[in-house]
Amino acid sequence: MPSTTLPMLETYPKSINLDRAKLAAAIDALNDCAQACTACADACLSEDMVAELTKCVRTNLDCADICASTARVLSRHTGYDANISRTLLQACATACKSCGDECASHADKHEHCRICAEACRACEQACRDLLATIS
Amino acid sequence: MPSTTLPMLETYPKSINLDRAKLAAAIDALNDCAQACTACADACLSEDMVAELTKCVRTNLDCADICASTARVLSRHTGYDANISRTLLQACATACKSCGDECASHADKHEHCRICAEACRACEQACRDLLATIS
Amino acid sequence: MPSTTLPMLETYPKSINLDRAKLAAAIDALNDCAQACTACADACLSEDMVAELTKCVRTNLDCADICASTARVLSRHTGYDANISRTLLQACATACKSCGDECASHADKHEHCRICAEACRACEQACRDLLATIS
Amino acid sequence: MPSTTLPMLETYPKSINLDRAKLAAAIDALNDCAQACTACADACLSEDMVAELTKCVRTNLDCADICASTARVLSRHTGYDANISRTLLQACATACKSCGDECASHADKHEHCRICAEACRACEQACRDLLATIS
Repeated sequence: MPSTTLPMLETYPKSINLDRAKLAAAIDALNDCAQACTACADACLSEDMVAELTKCVRTNLDCADICASTARVLSRHTGYDANISRTLLQACATACKSCGDECASHADKHEHCRICAEACRACEQACRDLLATIS
Repeated sequence: MPSTTLPMLETYPKSINLDRAKLAAAIDALNDCAQACTACADACLSEDMVAELTKCVRTNLDCADICASTARVLSRHTGYDANISRTLLQACATACKSCGDECASHADKHEHCRICAEACRACEQACRDLLATIS
Repeated sequence: MPSTTLPMLETYPKSINLDRAKLAAAIDALNDCAQACTACADACLSEDMVAELTKCVRTNLDCADICASTARVLSRHTGYDANISRTLLQACATACKSCGDECASHADKHEHCRICAEACRACEQACRDLLATIS
Repeated sequence: MPSTTLPMLETYPKSINLDRAKLAAAIDALNDCAQACTACADACLSEDMVAELTKCVRTNLDCADICASTARVLSRHTGYDANISRTLLQACATACKSCGDECASHADKHEHCRICAEACRACEQACRDLLATIS
């Protein structure tokens, strides 16, 4: 099932202050990262060594919440405010960096951490790419 | 970018009480519907005839919130509780039905409503397909 | 700091299909329960016996997500749809019952579970009280 | 009903890197602001002059999402990461400032905007007070 993010962006009836393709790529990366982090937190909870994964669970939960909110904010164009988008993207890139680092440190033991680390890296990059276009 | 939903499900370290392919399809449909509804609410706000679209905005917001929560709950398998999944899927199918009907009634005038109605129909069906497998 | 829920409800410019005092009580109970569950999940993660609390963490996360979404839906009155409110309140009462039971089973060992169980019980009751008034 | 935020914080089993009273005050202000913004967005949708309030609706929705996520992140202490808290609080203060300004500009016409502007100002201040304590 292809994402409806870009088709929906193309139907927005007024102008958008950001590049629509970069924006859609960022929103898709954010939603994918939020999903991966939610699933990784739960997979960590079911590992026998959960006691060694509590920081990973917590960072996953933070990253999922921040990515989900950022995707929503970036999906709104009415009354656009660059300050909100910029500071939120900075917070989101920070959360993705932290979560990507934490998951990467467990990637050799847990496949869910390996996949989640990749989703965090891709999302961090998409946030930074979009940030670079916000004046 | 393919969704990481199914790959993440396949890394879950314990058994899952639902069919993994149906579950991944439902989660993807829920995330896609949440995204479409968030975007449709904002597109409606930017239409000149926004005063005729206020019920659509509201139903979009409800549907986005409920789909997002349902996707999260379905992404957790640790300490699975069928009662929560079942009642939440019923609420979610109800919200998708309402939002799909509302958006469909504006589909001839607004392309964002047409695409969003399709996402709601697909999500309602995915919720009902999954519900049918929950004892 | 007193909640602004009821003052905000009183400024809503059109009629509301539910009793405003019961509605405000439910919204406040939902927000309080969501907050308690988010905090309880994290407190469980920091207990030395976290391996015995993984079902509690998971149920806390579900309950927090569902309560937060239900509070949002109940805070909207434009284009009111009784079917969405009713089915979502049923799902929310179910989640509060499950989470209240799970937390209560750890209440003698963990004070955060004891307080959270109370918040879940109060929220379940507020949901059922409101449900009884929805035709 | 008094908030359970501070009582829950006091049961957290390990040390917390922030002042618990300031932290509880910020979390309560964030939850209150999220609730006020969600209600204000819907009240705006029901005003006859909704076409003049679309930027207010949008900023309300952003502020509600960001405040809700910030409250969740601040409610977690396991594996604390000051960089996430700091950047997210900066984004949240920015959103509260924008939403407070927008609502204040409608405060003489709409009581819901007046109350919401106050909640945004209080929340912005609580975020800045907490930020000042994060090294």
